[in-house]
Parts: sequence; structure tokens; C-alpha cells
Amino acid sequence: MKKLINIIQNKNSEKNPPIWIMRQAGRYLPEYREVRSNVKNFLELCYTPKLASEVTLQPIRRFGLDAAIIFSDILVIPDALGIKVDFVKNEGPKLQKISTIEDLKKFKIDNIKSHLNPVFEALELTKSQLDDSTALIGFAGAPWTLACYMIEGGGSKNFESVRIKAIQDPEFFSQLIEILINSIIEYLSLKIKAGADVVKLFDSWAGVLPSSEIQKWVINPAKKIVSELKKLHPEVPVICFPRGIGMNYLEFKKQVPCDVIALDQTVERNWAKKNLQQDCEAVLQGNLDNILLAFGSKKEIEKEVLDILEKFGDKPFIFNLGHGIIPQTPIENVEFILDLIRK
Amino acid sequence: MKKLINIIQNKNSEKNPPIWIMRQAGRYLPEYREVRSNVKNFLELCYTPKLASEVTLQPIRRFGLDAAIIFSDILVIPDALGIKVDFVKNEGPKLQKISTIEDLKKFKIDNIKSHLNPVFEALELTKSQLDDSTALIGFAGAPWTLACYMIEGGGSKNFESVRIKAIQDPEFFSQLIEILINSIIEYLSLKIKAGADVVKLFDSWAGVLPSSEIQKWVINPAKKIVSELKKLHPEVPVICFPRGIGMNYLEFKKQVPCDVIALDQTVERNWAKKNLQQDCEAVLQGNLDNILLAFGSKKEIEKEVLDILEKFGDKPFIFNLGHGIIPQTPIENVEFILDLIRK
Repeated sequence: MKKLINIIQNKNSEKNPPIWIMRQAGRYLPEYREVRSNVKNFLELCYTPKLASEVTLQPIRRFGLDAAIIFSDILVIPDALGIKVDFVKNEGPKLQKISTIEDLKKFKIDNIKSHLNPVFEALELTKSQLDDSTALIGFAGAPWTLACYMIEGGGSKNFESVRIKAIQDPEFFSQLIEILINSIIEYLSLKIKAGADVVKLFDSWAGVLPSSEIQKWVINPAKKIVSELKKLHPEVPVICFPRGIGMNYLEFKKQVPCDVIALDQTVERNWAKKNLQQDCEAVLQGNLDNILLAFGSKKEIEKEVLDILEKFGDKPFIFNLGHGIIPQTPIENVEFILDLIRK
Repeated sequence: MKKLINIIQNKNSEKNPPIWIMRQAGRYLPEYREVRSNVKNFLELCYTPKLASEVTLQPIRRFGLDAAIIFSDILVIPDALGIKVDFVKNEGPKLQKISTIEDLKKFKIDNIKSHLNPVFEALELTKSQLDDSTALIGFAGAPWTLACYMIEGGGSKNFESVRIKAIQDPEFFSQLIEILINSIIEYLSLKIKAGADVVKLFDSWAGVLPSSEIQKWVINPAKKIVSELKKLHPEVPVICFPRGIGMNYLEFKKQVPCDVIALDQTVERNWAKKNLQQDCEAVLQGNLDNILLAFGSKKEIEKEVLDILEKFGDKPFIFNLGHGIIPQTPIENVEFILDLIRK
């Protein structure tokens, strides 16, 4: 029996909530760094099923977490569409920028299945090696966040280019978002067919939008994606993570038929308990600060973990961080929180 | 009679709310670009009373706004403390980084009054040229935001250095915040003595903190600063702008004795109306999207302006943007919103 699925589907609460960690297959693990050092670039690791599966399983072997999340990157969708994606050391991803409807016409929209086949193979391989208690999660970047990378050409300080583009060229931008919605539905659906028990939609940059545009570019696309997935795979839970949208989380939850709402670390817990968990009966996931986990004292970390358990633990809840675990995180800090949660 | 002050002090609502615009003395104005082109660097403009006063008055002459905000920069406090601050074209500010208690000991903490004297002179000069209906606003960056620039050495994509420092070296960080609190109190108090009718505290990067640290580094310092200013100048209204803190705005309002809460553009208006304006009786200011004002169609801009007036206009309220006006903003768009608001 998978504890994570039980919590979500039966809305049970458990004395010890299930736990997994965003970016759990990552650079804080020496066994990950070992595998990573033997491949030329990051995408090669994503597209080599044996290696992607191996790093996916590493944190499960080490910590016995309640879910494995298939090792990959949100930028594999732009890559499949034919956008050149490079991961530059110490600089983050660099993408060929798009800006016109002509650019969209060049997209290889039928490429998702063939180009991303290694990801589906990695899922199958991983599934065959997981025991019955561990859920397998597949994920995708949400349309707005992918559009940010594709228009800014990488990460950004202020996201001005993508924000301007969305307002100034609504025809182009709506078409881009539509293409991404369809690609994401196809991709996540194929991930489910390849063995994902749960899927998660990451909208990492949702928080840069004003409230009215959160409706347009975050909530509406998520509604379409989740509704379609629910038609195709009614039994598969969907986790949504519209990071940084503050009080707009409430409107998101009301409109998007997802099963779990993942909270970022800026979310005030009393607010989330009352508005999302009690009033909306949302299954919540979150939201330990990733910087605190890496650099806080045991005492400070314990205080926060206990606060999370106290606030959220008496209803269906999944423990996680509020953002991905960072490379500098000591492994003993991860062990420390696991002990606290399993106590 | 100053409309802005009347709204704040008497908690009146007016059919046409007062309006001013963050960064209203700025690059979107040709008369500003003209003055700017004749000085070598940005700080020279801040520190030349005649010029700072001139650019402060430009938007008042052109638009007849309800408040003038003295032209300056939040980084004049680090500059006064002896930190080297450069404004690099197209890159934003670059600061000499600080990281140790030794660095703090070198701060010239008695320098605020003498080093920033040109700012106070600019205020006096401006005050003498404003008519009785226009309020004069002085401002400062809040401690957390100044600490971000001083530790990151400028702007940042993810603010990881300052977040790590605050957790890993709490002694250094608390001392830094204390020094900044005291410098800000002294600075704003001197601005009031020089003629500011209102002061505003900008915490531009408050939104990168998790909820528990918002309490420590945003709410607690603001509480100290505002309480002390209220002791020294009980009659002077204080506006606080803890940008990007989402539902934490509510806790901020409950704890900080400021007169006005400025809302950033991510704030959902129904939430703010109910929680801040109705339940807390806060005077609100905000929150038109600055990117929409620059690039939206008249129809879209009108829709948002009317939504703001409808949601907030029946209680004491000050119209503003949710972030500073950007250089690309057409002047006719500013005139357009002024017409709508004054109709």
C-alpha cells in the first residue's frame, strides 16, 4: 500500500505523514554527483533511461522516502518542441528565444512521444525496481513557467520580457500557451502510461504575475490540463504547485480540480490551514524552507518541522520542502527531519 | 488642504481618490531624461539639491499629482554608511559586499545627517515650491531590502547569499539590521524635519522570505521604525510597502502601526478589501500593474483602473501602481488613468 496515495485518495490523515523532497535526486547526494560527473551534459542524464532511473532511485535507497520523482527537467518539453536548450555551468539554462508566430509554426508539436521516449523508458525501468509502498511521481513545468524560459531565453531577474510579451502580443502568447497546454497533457498522460502513480505540475514563476494575469496564465491553463488528465486517468492524483502566488492559492484551489496543493515557503501556515485545508478540504503538501534545511541549526529546523506537523498534521498532509533542496544541504539534516517526522 | 493627508488622517473616502505614482520622477519623462543626461552619474543627481528638487517637481507640474516624492534612492543609506555604491548602466546598482562584523564596525554610523544633507536641502527647496494641496513624501529602503543589496552586492536572481547569511550568521545579521533600523529612523526623522509631510518605507524584497523570517526581518524592524517615528512625529503619516508578502500582509498590518498599507500588484483585491480594508480599517494604496500601464491597450488599462476604484474606492484609498512606473510607459497612458480617476 502506497502511503502517499492513501492519504490523497482516502483523505486519511496519518500520525506520520508521507514525505518526499523536491529535487531529492540532486547534487546534495554524493552518489548523484558521481553519476553526473560521468555524463557530458545535464540533458544526457535526463535522456539516458538507465542513468535517469538510477539517480531517481538513489534517494529512495538512502532515505526510504514515500515517493520517487522521476529524474528529469521541466525544459524537456521546449527541447522536444525543437527549441535549443543548453545547461551552462553556474549560469543555469540558456534557451533559443522565441518571439513570433513564425517561431511557433516551426514547433515540432508531434515530437513529444518520440523525442521524450527515454523519459518514459526511465519511468518503466524505475517502476520495475520500486517496492509497493513507494509512489512514482512524474512532473512537467506549467505553461506560464515554460513560456518564461522560452521568451526570456533562460532564468530572469525581473521577467520583464515575458510579462511585456504576454500583454503586448496576446495572439502570439495565447497560441504559445495553448501549444504548451496540449504538449503537457500529452507528456503527463504518457508518463502515467509509463508508470507514474501521481503527476505534478510545477509553475515555478507564477508569483511574478499580477492577480488578474494569474487567472489568465496560471489558473486557466492548470484547469485545462488537470481536467483533461482527470478525464483520461481519473484514478491518478495530480499535485499542483503554483509557486509564490500568495493569497491567490485560494482561487487556484477553488478552480483547479487537482488533488494536492503544494505550498511554497512564503505561505503563512495559519492562513493555509484555515483557508485551504479546513475550508476547502485540500490535501496540502509543504512547506519547510529549503535554505533553513541547508543552513539552519538543528534547533531551528526542529522548530519549523514541528510547527508544520502541528499546523497541518491532523488532516491529510504530505511533508515536503517549499522549494527544491539545494546542493549545500548536509545529508544529516535530511536524516534529522526524517527522524522527526517518523517519530 | 492636502487631499492625501486628509484621506489618511480623517479616514475620509473621496469620490476621486488622491493619486501619485511610484517612481513618478523617472525615465519615462523626457524632461527627466534631459536633466539626467547632464549629470555624470545617478548619485550626483540624488545629491544635487537643485536638480533633485527639479526632477521631483516635474511630474507635479505635468500631471498635478496629489503627492510629490522627493527624488532619491534607497541606497543612499548604505552610501552614507561608507559602502561604495555604483550605478552601472544596464546592470543596476553594484555595491561593495559586506559579510563580517568587522565590516559593520567600519560603518560610519554618525554620517547620516552630514552625508545626506543634500537630500534634506532638496526637501526644503521642494517644499518651498509646492502649493498647499500637494503632499511631500520622503522615503527609505527597509532594513531587509538594504541588507539584500549590501550582502548580494547588488540585485539578485534568487537572493541565496543574503538568505544564507541571515540564517548562518545571525549575530552579524541582527547587528546589521539593528544598524539599519537606527539609520533609517534618523534619516526619515531628518526628512520630516526638512519638510516631508509623509514618509514611506520600501521593503522591495520582502517577498523572498519564508513566513517565519518575514516576522523576524520584515515585520519586527518595521514595527520598531514606525513606532519610533510615531513617538518623534505623531502627526506624520507612514506608508509601508512590504512588497510581495502575499497573505502575510495581514499579519504585517496587525503588528505595524503604520497609517497606509501599499499593495503590490500580485495582491488579489477581493482579499485585500475584505481582510485589510474592511476588517482592519487600513488605508490602502495601490495596485495597478506597472507593465500593463506601459504595454496594455486603453481598454485593458481602463478595466483594471475601474476594478481598483470599485473594490477600494468606497473607503479611504490612495491610487498608485503596484510597482514603479517603467521607462517604456507612454505619457498618454498616465494621462489616461488620471482622467479616469478624476472623472
